[in-house]
Amino acid sequence: MSQELTLYSYWRSSSSWRVRLALHHKGVDFTTVPVHLVRDGGEQHKDAHVARNPLRQIPTLEVQGKEGKRAYISQSVAIMEWLEEAYPDAPSIFPSADPLQKALTRQLTEIINSGTQPLQNLNVIQYLRDDVGVDAKAFCRRYIQKGLEAYLATLPDVSGPFSMGEHVSMADFCLVPQLYNARRFKLDLEPFARLLAIESACQEVEAFKKAHPDAQPDFDANAPA
Amino acid sequence: MSQELTLYSYWRSSSSWRVRLALHHKGVDFTTVPVHLVRDGGEQHKDAHVARNPLRQIPTLEVQGKEGKRAYISQSVAIMEWLEEAYPDAPSIFPSADPLQKALTRQLTEIINSGTQPLQNLNVIQYLRDDVGVDAKAFCRRYIQKGLEAYLATLPDVSGPFSMGEHVSMADFCLVPQLYNARRFKLDLEPFARLLAIESACQEVEAFKKAHPDAQPDFDANAPA
Repeated sequence: MSQELTLYSYWRSSSSWRVRLALHHKGVDFTTVPVHLVRDGGEQHKDAHVARNPLRQIPTLEVQGKEGKRAYISQSVAIMEWLEEAYPDAPSIFPSADPLQKALTRQLTEIINSGTQPLQNLNVIQYLRDDVGVDAKAFCRRYIQKGLEAYLATLPDVSGPFSMGEHVSMADFCLVPQLYNARRFKLDLEPFARLLAIESACQEVEAFKKAHPDAQPDFDANAPA
Repeated sequence: MSQELTLYSYWRSSSSWRVRLALHHKGVDFTTVPVHLVRDGGEQHKDAHVARNPLRQIPTLEVQGKEGKRAYISQSVAIMEWLEEAYPDAPSIFPSADPLQKALTRQLTEIINSGTQPLQNLNVIQYLRDDVGVDAKAFCRRYIQKGLEAYLATLPDVSGPFSMGEHVSMADFCLVPQLYNARRFKLDLEPFARLLAIESACQEVEAFKKAHPDAQPDFDANAPA
């Protein structure tokens, strides 16, 4: 399957980062189009992006649909699973084809994707802070900590440097951006030595270097922490 | 593949409900073991359940692992995807084998699973209400409404009574429990006529009758709304 792929992305969005990791891991060519979530009130609200994604979200992947029509996929897990199915001969995002190993990979993935990240997204932070008047950062820290504790408790008993053992997987694609966010929220990561060791092993992998926020065309070294 | 499956479940948990729907849709035999989330401070905290799931969560599916050992899968999406792979000849949880149709199904699934449900779970409600002292129900209503708006805006332009057209899918397994929760939080559902029509179509399907909270062994007609 050879087709043009365009990723609408923001350098610091953790879910965009996951999708970049899956794309680089599979070695699939793609074009990045940055969508700046903050500048000018947020480029995701401009007509051009709303036409691609009525929810005004990134990441959104533009792919080839039926009869040459363009189609758009959003939600990072849906995009990563699509890449796996559309490029079955490229390196897998799972450690093996065994259904139980895939299930345990998806379980770790969802602990971050649905169990952690939604409780620290920009909309929730802005609402809690600006409309409800509470300490949104404390709220986020609480749920990032719970999420990382859950991830740690769920890691399978395997040998190898990555979450699922010897092979990098979709679980690592979710863990590494989540650890980056944990630091932004100033969470104490000392209790998470095993997760930090996994992160270090990932940082040696080429796909992780290419997908890092600092390596993106829209990286902003002067952005507030 | 023939094996004994045990679902640890709570009648009113929306993520347990999704998994019951997938099990009944695929026609897979399973045993339900209720785990009462409220009684006695929560049965999920008892040693017997913590041994199955260190995160003290339901749903958890007990399956056969390697060499006859029992294995446990949690996270509703991971369980549903496992069922699809472990029982490939049973009715599919996707509308077709086309990767793009599967991606759009997973996109709708994640709008509920990661975009909506995490912002109304029991732990978040208790924390916002008891520790932060804010109106947790208003918070939940806000994000259920946003989630249902997103689902509606993302529905593909297809004919047929269900979310993905002519075939029931994993997306419907997430939507129907979410609408039930929306009513518990007293959200005005009038703007969501198309979603209510999908729900009505689902309610005619045998799997939806069997998986309904009212049909579970631990259903409690006297539980507070």
